[in-house]
Amino acid sequence: MMQFELTKDFLETLNLAVEVNNESKVLELIDGLQSADIAEIIDEQTLEEAIAFYQFFSQEQAADILIELDEGARERILNSLSSEEIAKQFIDNMDSDDAADVLAEMSDEKKNEVISHLEDFEQASDIVDLLSYEEDTAGGLMAKELFKVDINWDIKTCINELRIQSQDIEQVYTVYVVDDKNILQGIVSLKRLLLTPDNKKIKDIYNDNIISVKANVKDEEVGNIMDKYDLVVVPVVDEIGRLLGRITIDDVVEVIKEEAEKDYQMASGISENVESSDSVWLLTRARLPWLFIGLFGGILGARVIGNYEHELQLHPEMAIFIPLIAAMAGNVGVQSSAIVVQGLANNSLGLDGLWSKLLKELGVALINGVVLSSLIFGYCFFFEASTALSLTVSIALLSVIIFAALFGTIVPLLLNKYKVDPALATGPFITTVNDIFGLFLYFLIGHLMYL
Amino acid sequence: MMQFELTKDFLETLNLAVEVNNESKVLELIDGLQSADIAEIIDEQTLEEAIAFYQFFSQEQAADILIELDEGARERILNSLSSEEIAKQFIDNMDSDDAADVLAEMSDEKKNEVISHLEDFEQASDIVDLLSYEEDTAGGLMAKELFKVDINWDIKTCINELRIQSQDIEQVYTVYVVDDKNILQGIVSLKRLLLTPDNKKIKDIYNDNIISVKANVKDEEVGNIMDKYDLVVVPVVDEIGRLLGRITIDDVVEVIKEEAEKDYQMASGISENVESSDSVWLLTRARLPWLFIGLFGGILGARVIGNYEHELQLHPEMAIFIPLIAAMAGNVGVQSSAIVVQGLANNSLGLDGLWSKLLKELGVALINGVVLSSLIFGYCFFFEASTALSLTVSIALLSVIIFAALFGTIVPLLLNKYKVDPALATGPFITTVNDIFGLFLYFLIGHLMYL
Repeated sequence: MMQFELTKDFLETLNLAVEVNNESKVLELIDGLQSADIAEIIDEQTLEEAIAFYQFFSQEQAADILIELDEGARERILNSLSSEEIAKQFIDNMDSDDAADVLAEMSDEKKNEVISHLEDFEQASDIVDLLSYEEDTAGGLMAKELFKVDINWDIKTCINELRIQSQDIEQVYTVYVVDDKNILQGIVSLKRLLLTPDNKKIKDIYNDNIISVKANVKDEEVGNIMDKYDLVVVPVVDEIGRLLGRITIDDVVEVIKEEAEKDYQMASGISENVESSDSVWLLTRARLPWLFIGLFGGILGARVIGNYEHELQLHPEMAIFIPLIAAMAGNVGVQSSAIVVQGLANNSLGLDGLWSKLLKELGVALINGVVLSSLIFGYCFFFEASTALSLTVSIALLSVIIFAALFGTIVPLLLNKYKVDPALATGPFITTVNDIFGLFLYFLIGHLMYL
Repeated sequence: MMQFELTKDFLETLNLAVEVNNESKVLELIDGLQSADIAEIIDEQTLEEAIAFYQFFSQEQAADILIELDEGARERILNSLSSEEIAKQFIDNMDSDDAADVLAEMSDEKKNEVISHLEDFEQASDIVDLLSYEEDTAGGLMAKELFKVDINWDIKTCINELRIQSQDIEQVYTVYVVDDKNILQGIVSLKRLLLTPDNKKIKDIYNDNIISVKANVKDEEVGNIMDKYDLVVVPVVDEIGRLLGRITIDDVVEVIKEEAEKDYQMASGISENVESSDSVWLLTRARLPWLFIGLFGGILGARVIGNYEHELQLHPEMAIFIPLIAAMAGNVGVQSSAIVVQGLANNSLGLDGLWSKLLKELGVALINGVVLSSLIFGYCFFFEASTALSLTVSIALLSVIIFAALFGTIVPLLLNKYKVDPALATGPFITTVNDIFGLFLYFLIGHLMYL
């Protein structure tokens, strides 16, 4: 099976088949599709279409699909069902982490109602446990389903025990080894279990050099750890090392991606995690605050220029390079800060101190500055034929590039030191400050040149 | 074991212990550290320190560490060794995909020399196969090591066969099922094998509804597929469906991360994949081209303003809002394009057509534009006391916001349609065009207002 691609034609054909309840046609159309593909279809359907379409799936399939839906589509479908239906058709058939995620999206009242209708007591208690963790921590990411064996068992006991445990667990990632107090001791791979004689003990074959995370660790940190150590699954323990659950990589890929995308959004002046499919209102709310910063910066810039209105009257040609100076200051600052922000996000800044980083930025800025200033000097000199203007523009450009590069480097580092998200500094804030300071430098130098 | 954090103190203590060859101290310091931690240490050492430190590891550990090193550190260490040492100490002990990645970094001559020294013929032929694929495709990402069984075997034969195959393979992700022509038929999980009676056949228990990728599929596409379907491992097949290898999620996390980061870098005006630890020269090369675009844009902006120099002489107060108009045009354009670029990268744009997207952007732009224009009108009216200027600035701001939002939306969509990376459009390009057009609008409106 290669990847499925949803088209308008496919959607129309399917909706028609669903509407006339042509089961064989519907099953033919969705043959071989995965839950994620079906979810993509449902995301594009109206509520009526989606509910009619949902009839064609078994309870387990329906639960798998529900998890893959966009939050909006999931909410619409769940709102059309009673708490009892939600509990029995969906939540009882889900892994504990997915179930907790779905419940976390509901109101407290609805959540409690749904939990009270769960038939599987173990599932209900797992979910209640999971709901007690903050969403953006290891505890909020983990699932309770896992295979575990006692360090003192022999292989035969283990395999029998795993046969029992496997009724509740779909996918085996690894088998955890605990002592009689449930304290995590290590792991043993299924392969190892499969290939070791029955009478050996777990104690003899388990691997005790493993990485675990505590339940209160932030999700980004979990992402960094799994990425760094190439882990597919990581066990979660409490403060005294008792095994609580496990986190699999697919949940963490989302976190890693969102983290990288969040930095980009912030640098572009977009707060909150919005997508192009969100409402006009949400999109506006995510963007307007940053534009206020820009507007405020523009007004401050206007005041700077206003101070030199007298110079401008005498030398109106100075106005024509205002946008160039402002734009270059912004561009250089964003470049510098983007590199620092990504370095911080990746832990790839190394052990270099602040001063050696600034020294390097100074080097880059000097090369860029000299090249670009020479070009603009040449242009001004030949096309504007004014030595004063040429000198003003080129000296101002060089100064502005150096200032913007250093400022763009130092601000995210400082924010990070004081535990503020360094990505906040990039984009509108750095651009605006650099704009204003660049204009100030430009007119100051112009003032000196034209004396 | 919790995560390791490298400090200057630790590094000094370790280097001292390595220098005086104090084995027990070195082993005590690195006790419980993973390969990725050791690699982090070596990345910060000089070549001499690294080579002395490397003596403390077994061949297998040494190979594991080599893979985790930064490209620069790896290159330095490999350059200090002969081809034979590289082959026998490192390449023979690596998984085929890692081995191919390391070899791909060498010159053709060195690569062939190393391959000629490999003792394991199977390893050598796997590596040669892998080197024939482009680095950024599924073939370039995959490893050849995998467990496979014939669809006609019974469980007992399978388990025996897996015992043999497992000598070469460290980690079992899944067991692939092929027919007698090596054409991929499906998968069977180790858990299933473990729990099924010996006399049953693979045919009866395997799962044929699986996702595979062709060897020539781009790495980003592999990342999207594994992310969408929550896969930990995906099989790679050739054009007629024969099983070639498998790709694991840890290799793809890198691709997913780099993809998200690349968009951010491009939007910030940084080409190539640079890090803050790269050389001044590399950093400059990645940044200067985008600054040229900015400079060129600034010159065009200067020409636009130059055309209205006469107006400026009569109304020098118009100059003071030049940076505001230019900055807002840039900010709005970047916001719009960032949302489209991320939507394209995530396949989350849905089935909406171009027109409905533009309509939505128009809605957002109208709200933002009306709010911000009213504010600036108020400011101008009270502080600059000129109706003509107040009207010019506020009308120009509204027009510029609408234009920039639509332009920022349409450009990445168009680029994507013509198979150009849409992230190229964001940052300097969109900012620059919006700057120039914004200035043009501002002076045009000013010209009409002051008539």
